[in-house]
Amino acid sequence: MVNFNYYAPTNVLFGRGVEEQVGEIVSGYGFSRILVHFGGGSVKRSGLLDRVLARLESAGVGYVLLGGVVPNPRISLVREGIGIVKKEKLQMILAIGGGSVIDSSKAIGYGVASGGDPWDFYSGKRKPTGCLPVGVILTIAAAGSEMSNSSVLTNEEEVRKKGCSNDLCRPLFALMNPELTMTLPPYQTSCGCTDIVMHSLERWFNRGGTMDLTDALAAGLIRTVMRSAAVLMEHPDDYEARANVMWAGSLSHNGLTGCGGVGRGDWITHNMEHEVGAIFDVSHGAGLAALWGSWARYVLPSCTERFVKFATMVLDVPQQESDTETALEGIRRMEAFFRSLNMPTSLAELGVSPTEEQMRLMAHKCSGGGTVGRAADLDENDLYNIYKAAL
Amino acid sequence: MVNFNYYAPTNVLFGRGVEEQVGEIVSGYGFSRILVHFGGGSVKRSGLLDRVLARLESAGVGYVLLGGVVPNPRISLVREGIGIVKKEKLQMILAIGGGSVIDSSKAIGYGVASGGDPWDFYSGKRKPTGCLPVGVILTIAAAGSEMSNSSVLTNEEEVRKKGCSNDLCRPLFALMNPELTMTLPPYQTSCGCTDIVMHSLERWFNRGGTMDLTDALAAGLIRTVMRSAAVLMEHPDDYEARANVMWAGSLSHNGLTGCGGVGRGDWITHNMEHEVGAIFDVSHGAGLAALWGSWARYVLPSCTERFVKFATMVLDVPQQESDTETALEGIRRMEAFFRSLNMPTSLAELGVSPTEEQMRLMAHKCSGGGTVGRAADLDENDLYNIYKAAL
Repeated sequence: MVNFNYYAPTNVLFGRGVEEQVGEIVSGYGFSRILVHFGGGSVKRSGLLDRVLARLESAGVGYVLLGGVVPNPRISLVREGIGIVKKEKLQMILAIGGGSVIDSSKAIGYGVASGGDPWDFYSGKRKPTGCLPVGVILTIAAAGSEMSNSSVLTNEEEVRKKGCSNDLCRPLFALMNPELTMTLPPYQTSCGCTDIVMHSLERWFNRGGTMDLTDALAAGLIRTVMRSAAVLMEHPDDYEARANVMWAGSLSHNGLTGCGGVGRGDWITHNMEHEVGAIFDVSHGAGLAALWGSWARYVLPSCTERFVKFATMVLDVPQQESDTETALEGIRRMEAFFRSLNMPTSLAELGVSPTEEQMRLMAHKCSGGGTVGRAADLDENDLYNIYKAAL
Repeated sequence: MVNFNYYAPTNVLFGRGVEEQVGEIVSGYGFSRILVHFGGGSVKRSGLLDRVLARLESAGVGYVLLGGVVPNPRISLVREGIGIVKKEKLQMILAIGGGSVIDSSKAIGYGVASGGDPWDFYSGKRKPTGCLPVGVILTIAAAGSEMSNSSVLTNEEEVRKKGCSNDLCRPLFALMNPELTMTLPPYQTSCGCTDIVMHSLERWFNRGGTMDLTDALAAGLIRTVMRSAAVLMEHPDDYEARANVMWAGSLSHNGLTGCGGVGRGDWITHNMEHEVGAIFDVSHGAGLAALWGSWARYVLPSCTERFVKFATMVLDVPQQESDTETALEGIRRMEAFFRSLNMPTSLAELGVSPTEEQMRLMAHKCSGGGTVGRAADLDENDLYNIYKAAL
């Protein structure tokens, strides 16, 4: 194991009806003028937005609305948000939604508090020096952005999707009512469960060791999500299963399942998906499922020990004739899990057919011209091979 | 499951040599005058105190020293600390030690920021309204106070040991180097492992349900501590085992293993031990081990389902002829674990022989004149019976 920093300061209120406390919580922090940021019409149609606004008004909190966040949130709306916050002198951003809305809020927060163009923080040109406080009412269990230090943004002009990780953006509070996720379309629920599992998988697969406690927590988390996801396929309104998935979403990406791991994991599947998502606008979770198996088989020889431990400890695979066989059986079972959620396990099943040129370009961008990954050292040719295998 | 609040904002730096960063961290928060609070001579003898003071000096941080914290820390030293902090206008308290030193620091922090006599917060007379920031360099893995919202204090005049739980006292940062725990006497290591396991056990046993994810995390944590404790009995300088136990100590008491559980658990074994500790000045972990089995057998009929799940999920007990038998086998295995660490499983083995009068008094104080507990409803007569069974 290696030294680590664990910092997850978000104040989580979890359970039925917690969103009703938003007024007293926001005013309790001393905020009286905020940006309310959200996505499409679902928070309006469900009545959630109206309920939240009523609570804010009762608590004497003024607000400006900014809707319209789309999946794979865009820099243009972020720039608009920064302008509004500055002009209206708003003190915090309340994100109502899932990862896209929260990530867009974090980007606005960076832009307001750190100055300059927010894309700089995602392109790696500058590091943010501050972030306006972000609070969350979570409606989608997936990205874990409600406790995480990461955000992902799409620059639609440059056709790039990039992440920025910094503790400054960890949300101040998160109100998490599992009931709010019950009306998600089944496909989005499946994408969410996939993303949640993947956040711990990315941390699991690294050479150089981790720590037993982290493995035990990650295994417990992944197994719980897999069981709960199966329940939700049959009973989308099962409160306990929704709650397990929602809380797992936060814990799977707040750092807990990476403590002691070298480099905090691999993240190549995520980065490869970001390139696909930048071009094809697919659902993130589905994109991950489409790529993971091909990635796993490609890096297996470099990271066999971790794949064997994953297969036996997480998926109850009995020891096979060889470690490689045990590991491969684990990969097969993981893909079977994805399929059981109606997730794709290839780019074709994802509905995406990149050209040779696109695959070369995605591989090049993902590698940054160098060698990447913790489960294996991958250059742009390796990444191209993985895309190719995933077709 | 029930609604819950999870809030564990402590910034943890974990691993070899992290205590060397204390100067830059304290000054990074903007503190220039602090109280350095510690226990007996071991932090001096080991050279840790000198190293820390040198780092503070290099960073331009002034300090006042206050040593002398004893196990079951006392209100008299807390009052002295409050006087020093006020007189010297100190801005934070750096605790170097284990639970006793951290808890004493929290009590000083309450006293300074909330005013009045600090015992009021432990006797339940008043709630604290603020707490001076507390930072930690941890040298004992046990109490989990480095991330928790609790502190326990002994009023030596009133012969009472009481806890106060409030999020205000959650430490600002914790520097956790497992190497610093390698020189602990074996008995203290065992007491620490017992305390750590007990913090998740107390949360496990409640009627009214919990959530699957919390059970999975708690089971993984408890199993990891049990395995690591066994390693440490043979190899006290095993870094990985020390690290697992140390990190488990924080996670077992920061709230993680209680999320969704009714009332966040039972806590009767802890409260009964506090009464023993107030009179007999025993080691907390050993006191818990001495009482737990008698408590468990007494409450088993009221909370059978949780005992069965504990036996099967945590201790791999095969299903027996009856649920009660399965549960009892789990209790036996837990006691066997305590004995494997040379921990007592009775008050006699703890070296304590309370009189009838003392047991009646302890039971009365522990019950507060009413009914307590989450695994079962226990009045003062029940508590007396448990003490009696534990003799």
